[in-house]
Amino acid sequence: MTIQSVNPRTNEKFGPVIPETTSIELDEIITLSQTSLQIWSTRSPSFRANCLHSIANALEENIEELVKISDLETGLGEIRLTGEIGRTAFQIREFANAIQAGDLIAPLVDSAVELPVPQGHPQFVRTLVPIGIVAVFGASNFPFAFSVLGGDTSSALAAGCSVIVKAHPAHPQTSLRTYEIANKAMVDAGAPKGTLALVHGVESGQMLLRDERVQAGAFTGSKHGGRALFDISTARKNPIPFYGELGSVNPVIVLRSSIADPKVFACAYLDSLLMGNGQFCTNPSVMFIPKDSALSAEIETQIIDRVPSPFLSQATKTLHDKNREDLRVLISPKILSGQGKEGAGFYSAPMIFLSTVEHLLANISALTIECFGPTGLILTYTSISEVIDLVMKMDGALVGSLFGDSDDADAMVAGRALAGKVGRVAWNAWPTGVAVTAGQHHGGPYPASTAPLHTSVGLSAITRFLRPVTFQSLPPVLLNQVAMNLAKS
Amino acid sequence: MTIQSVNPRTNEKFGPVIPETTSIELDEIITLSQTSLQIWSTRSPSFRANCLHSIANALEENIEELVKISDLETGLGEIRLTGEIGRTAFQIREFANAIQAGDLIAPLVDSAVELPVPQGHPQFVRTLVPIGIVAVFGASNFPFAFSVLGGDTSSALAAGCSVIVKAHPAHPQTSLRTYEIANKAMVDAGAPKGTLALVHGVESGQMLLRDERVQAGAFTGSKHGGRALFDISTARKNPIPFYGELGSVNPVIVLRSSIADPKVFACAYLDSLLMGNGQFCTNPSVMFIPKDSALSAEIETQIIDRVPSPFLSQATKTLHDKNREDLRVLISPKILSGQGKEGAGFYSAPMIFLSTVEHLLANISALTIECFGPTGLILTYTSISEVIDLVMKMDGALVGSLFGDSDDADAMVAGRALAGKVGRVAWNAWPTGVAVTAGQHHGGPYPASTAPLHTSVGLSAITRFLRPVTFQSLPPVLLNQVAMNLAKS
Repeated sequence: MTIQSVNPRTNEKFGPVIPETTSIELDEIITLSQTSLQIWSTRSPSFRANCLHSIANALEENIEELVKISDLETGLGEIRLTGEIGRTAFQIREFANAIQAGDLIAPLVDSAVELPVPQGHPQFVRTLVPIGIVAVFGASNFPFAFSVLGGDTSSALAAGCSVIVKAHPAHPQTSLRTYEIANKAMVDAGAPKGTLALVHGVESGQMLLRDERVQAGAFTGSKHGGRALFDISTARKNPIPFYGELGSVNPVIVLRSSIADPKVFACAYLDSLLMGNGQFCTNPSVMFIPKDSALSAEIETQIIDRVPSPFLSQATKTLHDKNREDLRVLISPKILSGQGKEGAGFYSAPMIFLSTVEHLLANISALTIECFGPTGLILTYTSISEVIDLVMKMDGALVGSLFGDSDDADAMVAGRALAGKVGRVAWNAWPTGVAVTAGQHHGGPYPASTAPLHTSVGLSAITRFLRPVTFQSLPPVLLNQVAMNLAKS
Repeated sequence: MTIQSVNPRTNEKFGPVIPETTSIELDEIITLSQTSLQIWSTRSPSFRANCLHSIANALEENIEELVKISDLETGLGEIRLTGEIGRTAFQIREFANAIQAGDLIAPLVDSAVELPVPQGHPQFVRTLVPIGIVAVFGASNFPFAFSVLGGDTSSALAAGCSVIVKAHPAHPQTSLRTYEIANKAMVDAGAPKGTLALVHGVESGQMLLRDERVQAGAFTGSKHGGRALFDISTARKNPIPFYGELGSVNPVIVLRSSIADPKVFACAYLDSLLMGNGQFCTNPSVMFIPKDSALSAEIETQIIDRVPSPFLSQATKTLHDKNREDLRVLISPKILSGQGKEGAGFYSAPMIFLSTVEHLLANISALTIECFGPTGLILTYTSISEVIDLVMKMDGALVGSLFGDSDDADAMVAGRALAGKVGRVAWNAWPTGVAVTAGQHHGGPYPASTAPLHTSVGLSAITRFLRPVTFQSLPPVLLNQVAMNLAKS
């Protein structure tokens, strides 16, 4: 089997034919990764930070080439891709700074207590060691920030793990070039060869995750693909943690108190919904608006002028179109439509389905359908309690937005309902746009995440790849020789 | 189906016949648990701490009755059981103090940064919310510390979760009385009825874990039983975290530099191995000693006088005897044996299998057999590199011990090998005895734990049941109304 780039604007293949990784090649890659791990995991946080800075610099030095090739493969446009590379480099540097600062990996020293048990105990030093080889599965919709050098890779490298990335087939050349650039930068900075590796092909990705030498998996993508990989991780003889972000139907609640200018609000909604052709897991998937709101009429007017952007791939378009049609058949909504586009490229007209909370309460399974693309669902409500009834029946989600005044009595009950379902509650802000910072949480109950205690964005993403080891009464000289991640230098 | 207590010293049934929980009863229990959760989870940490202190006090007030009934059911003896209740009460109070102090549940306030993206971002407040209803599966070998009121239950209650315990069938009366005492104490202290609940029966335990209203599972017990429950948790339509401690074959490495007095050392080894009839997951399962050591001869002399204690149940004895026989057949060791015991009770003679590291390297699967009972394996070695080869091939374990001098060059390599395989490395100390403190880590790679990032003993056990929720730009007044675990009072 082979993989080749496809231009989503034209449905034309281009560039080199890339063979899928064979099982023999995969075995060699994992063997080398294991050897690298023995070295990389014992290097100081400062050393690893330095290598990460080298990668970030190399990424930016090659920005023109990377934007060009990734735009051809993804159709996301040069402005967005330039910004995404900047964000990716920033993220790598933030992880580097975090491990150098040391707070996230600091040992907990628990001094001996000279008392009878249960109060008394010997000295314990709780440290964090790299979990081992991490298998990272790149996403289609962020060819940099959630791909070969995305947050999963850079947080795992920061933790001291070696990483094997399974490239997403929708941007093979971007993946390959990103890998080559990063690998050269790392090796030039002194990292062992094989600390970062790249494989191609669905089957090799599955074999990778099944291999007993691999100790964790990380994934951002579809519910179907992510669940299959989660099932592989948990069915192993020795199951391993699998950090999967499997998609999300995100609720947006618009309170009665919120809309000063329906025209401005409608425009902002459409911008958030249709940015990047709606291919964001933080999309405003389902928006709840008061029944008598002028908003739906305003949106109906504005969407007419909206034009489609290309899907990332034929597969993304096919899945989106199927889900949209399933949703349409299930709830028979009023349909507000934007413009279509002729030609062989991967386009669908932006579309919004209009229905009521009352109707969806009788068709609750409709809210498990994620239309990953330019499709929104707007539900009108008569009371906030009706909205909360529905939200409580939804699956877990990454993010929920709440628009209103803080003295609106409905804000508290709506906020509480959202906090019970999502990983992030945004106030008077659209759900799209995920900052890389200490307080970020990009996760949530399943299917938003297969590991709801953990985040794939923000500094604490590093902790996913660190396993505690406590040393009991170890003499200081020996502790310094044995424990990892102890020193800052 | 019904459950009745069995005296392990005599194999005689006694006491009331306890019916297994029916599916209708279970549904009512879960429904009530969900209602309680809505209240309990929003009560202040101080309120919850107060309820936990009430439980700890009630446990100690009823110590005589509880020791008597649990000794009849488990055969562990009054001294051990009195100590275990003290430890359990201490643990409950430690969790109460931890949430009242607030460090473990403190929100992370990440102030807004007024810069362009990716550096700039709105304010984020990262909070921790109770994950939901927790299903706890009591262990046989700690009728208090790892059972109805064990660390899983008390850490989950501290986190703000409601808890449904599935009682271990080897001590049904102890479970029932402990539950009654704790439930009364909690309700008297103002906790909602149903915050803590108890069910009986294997099938009801499995139904509990399958129920979509349950959000996490916690278990200490056998690899077979734990894996079955792990598989249920991960096969659900919406998988949930399952914190399983599935047993452990713990390595103990005795360096050449370590043994000043073989007589004293042999006695300490046998004490650790045979304490509680060897029914500890932190047992010194396999001990590595230098080939020319006088230790094995000394152990051979001393074990002759050792007498058996009862197994916890017929099932425990049957499983132990089968595993011991499998191990014997597999490695044909030299056998050192203690005394047997006549009669109908559940006893087996203490036994130590003597072999070599070299021989085990050719029979590596033998080291996956956990003989949960009075059985030890001692392997002689010629060089430390041989030991490390073997340790690296072992499964993950809870704890490894290392005996030696700190200037022994072998200590460093042995310590590093252990740190790669276990959750705790003990220096010149036997692995048994697990203090409840901030620096403790009772976990490790599978099968020691199904969740190697987490501990089931020590203060951070609470974090297993807390899910992050980040609030973005939420006005302070609303944040105080919506977020949980914010206030200390």
